Amino acid sequence: MRHDPVRLTFEIHARDAGARRGTLQTPHGPVETPAFIPLATKGSVRGMSSREVRALGYELVLGNTYHLLVAPGPERIERAGGLHKFMAWDGAIITDSGGFQVFSLAHGGVSAEVKGTGRKMQGLAATLGIEEEGVRFRSYRDGSELLLSPESSMSVQASLGSDIALTFDECTPFHADRDYTARSTERTHRWLDRCLDWHRENGPPGQAVFGIVQGGTYEDLRLESCEAVSGAAVDGIAIGGTLGRDKEEMAEVLGFTVPALPVEAPKHLLGIGEVDDLMKGIALGLDVFDCAVPTRLARHGMALAPLPEKRFRFDLRKGYSAGRRGPLVEGCGCTACSDYDIDYLNYISRSEELTAVRLLVEHNLSYMEQLMTGARESISAGRFGDYSRSVLEGASPWQAAEIR
Amino acid sequence: MRHDPVRLTFEIHARDAGARRGTLQTPHGPVETPAFIPLATKGSVRGMSSREVRALGYELVLGNTYHLLVAPGPERIERAGGLHKFMAWDGAIITDSGGFQVFSLAHGGVSAEVKGTGRKMQGLAATLGIEEEGVRFRSYRDGSELLLSPESSMSVQASLGSDIALTFDECTPFHADRDYTARSTERTHRWLDRCLDWHRENGPPGQAVFGIVQGGTYEDLRLESCEAVSGAAVDGIAIGGTLGRDKEEMAEVLGFTVPALPVEAPKHLLGIGEVDDLMKGIALGLDVFDCAVPTRLARHGMALAPLPEKRFRFDLRKGYSAGRRGPLVEGCGCTACSDYDIDYLNYISRSEELTAVRLLVEHNLSYMEQLMTGARESISAGRFGDYSRSVLEGASPWQAAEIR
Repeated sequence: MRHDPVRLTFEIHARDAGARRGTLQTPHGPVETPAFIPLATKGSVRGMSSREVRALGYELVLGNTYHLLVAPGPERIERAGGLHKFMAWDGAIITDSGGFQVFSLAHGGVSAEVKGTGRKMQGLAATLGIEEEGVRFRSYRDGSELLLSPESSMSVQASLGSDIALTFDECTPFHADRDYTARSTERTHRWLDRCLDWHRENGPPGQAVFGIVQGGTYEDLRLESCEAVSGAAVDGIAIGGTLGRDKEEMAEVLGFTVPALPVEAPKHLLGIGEVDDLMKGIALGLDVFDCAVPTRLARHGMALAPLPEKRFRFDLRKGYSAGRRGPLVEGCGCTACSDYDIDYLNYISRSEELTAVRLLVEHNLSYMEQLMTGARESISAGRFGDYSRSVLEGASPWQAAEIR
Repeated sequence: MRHDPVRLTFEIHARDAGARRGTLQTPHGPVETPAFIPLATKGSVRGMSSREVRALGYELVLGNTYHLLVAPGPERIERAGGLHKFMAWDGAIITDSGGFQVFSLAHGGVSAEVKGTGRKMQGLAATLGIEEEGVRFRSYRDGSELLLSPESSMSVQASLGSDIALTFDECTPFHADRDYTARSTERTHRWLDRCLDWHRENGPPGQAVFGIVQGGTYEDLRLESCEAVSGAAVDGIAIGGTLGRDKEEMAEVLGFTVPALPVEAPKHLLGIGEVDDLMKGIALGLDVFDCAVPTRLARHGMALAPLPEKRFRFDLRKGYSAGRRGPLVEGCGCTACSDYDIDYLNYISRSEELTAVRLLVEHNLSYMEQLMTGARESISAGRFGDYSRSVLEGASPWQAAEIR
């Protein structure tokens, strides 16, 4: 771990058992943690303008190196003055390294399944080879050959000018055995060093770097990876890779991984999560979380709602919501909940009106932001346990925040 | 023509040559004319919440009887308290009678081509028969048999509770000959009487009715139709049907149709227009215009812009907009023009990001509203001719409004 206040500081203000409340200070302003990070994979949050995402309370979004390399390309974004200017986002940006995406192309299977990506891309692109150097693949836009390597990923992220870059790693697939996972994790560590070497020489002054812990579901490999990443000159730590076949195994893997990391480091759980995952991750001391769930659910007519028995999802395309009066979630200030009955949301979701997707993205992001606001406030009040329990038992974030 | 101040009044405040500025007073507030009417065909304006449409300055939207009959059905909207409550729109609503849609199913061809509808529906639904009674067709949702007739169309519109209902008519196809058009127009007049008979007995108290002038491109048939509709107990007059193969023929048809209608009647030109159509229609004394163009263009990556040589369309998917700095249209206050460079809008349009459609719908509706605001103000100032000329020569509505 290194400390470079110019580019990033992380201060912990309050602790409540394992959970903590903090502030990540970035060149583009503060990010109050624990925080949920909306995906702006290709430079836009689905259906939302940047100022609308900001108005919902978000301070940090995630862009993706793989997708932005394919289009519009780092040169064009650099000419526009960087990703912040290009997408008119004045908050902070973290960029994923592209490792997850290029390896999804190669591995497919459960890894792609788990995160809901990859399948579609496999028809469009192809991995041309995984080597010590990096991963060669074909652009799904024009068929041109592209390379993602530790150096090229960092170089793209330098052009994007994100506040936080992630190192280039292999996200080992779920079906990989111990031997493959061990070799892959060691290569990820060599790539970590190459990323940091490149960044030391060439990285933009304000940009911080988070290293990524891998190691699959194997305790010894995870611990080795924790040691390797913690010992490197990183500004924070992300936990990636296969976290198991189900939520129980994920809890187990995180249970031996998180305590092996330096307490003071900001920690990012990659690609997770659902409402219950966030509550459990916060309890373990994780700080930031990115996930496609709020935007992806919206595309399928599903709204986040205080329904633990239904994975916190209200399926607006189902018949039971036809004719129902009243708002989707009492207390939610989004347009869908303020202006419309469930009845109407059911109708436009079933009719696949664009307005449905738009309203549900706004609702789901509003729900997530309130969930995290409640978490932060309850940590400060020393009541995160009660807050989390209420949420997991079916209180909305608005109801749970009111319990004193 | 009848006068019933309870449901609708139309007052003309200013005239400038043939153009006029007025106010339609409806049970849901005033509509300043000339006005462009955004389509809320299925109960939502593409990608926009009702409050957002309102915030753009719109006072009147158009819902469609055919589509809302198929889903969610008039009973469900009635149970929700009518279409205004269902879709959370507190402004005025005009409902199309469904005639255009059911006859597009039957005729297809140029009529569907012209208005950009019909083709898709033909695979999904089928007309089962056109009779004096009305038109039977299959629901594209569940295959059930449905009837649209003068009485059923007015009954559906009564359930929807629109401020202005349109009478059930046949939109004669472009390829119809004089004989077919004459017989069809006569039937439309018999249907007009049946609509008004039904409405007199059963129509909701606040609802106004506009009759529709047909007659294809034949001057004598148009004049007969003008006489039939003007002589009926209608609150306003809509001009429908085939207006010709191109803009020249449309101008010719409108040129002999509009002067044959009572000056004091509010007049709606159905399904038109583009920027130049609106300027020419306003000059002729038409008051309201609905059209799918602003929302449909957005779906295809096209923005309204002061480009007469390109039909007032800026194709954001074209290469020439890549890398271009500056706003799409100087002066436009929409999110796309306020926050983003053309470069970014090109990229997200080509990437088919949902955000692109959303931003372009907002832009196109903002552009249309400013176009009409400028028209209204210039009529009051006795300068509509200059305003219109500026717009047709390539000034944006914002620039044209500033010319004093």
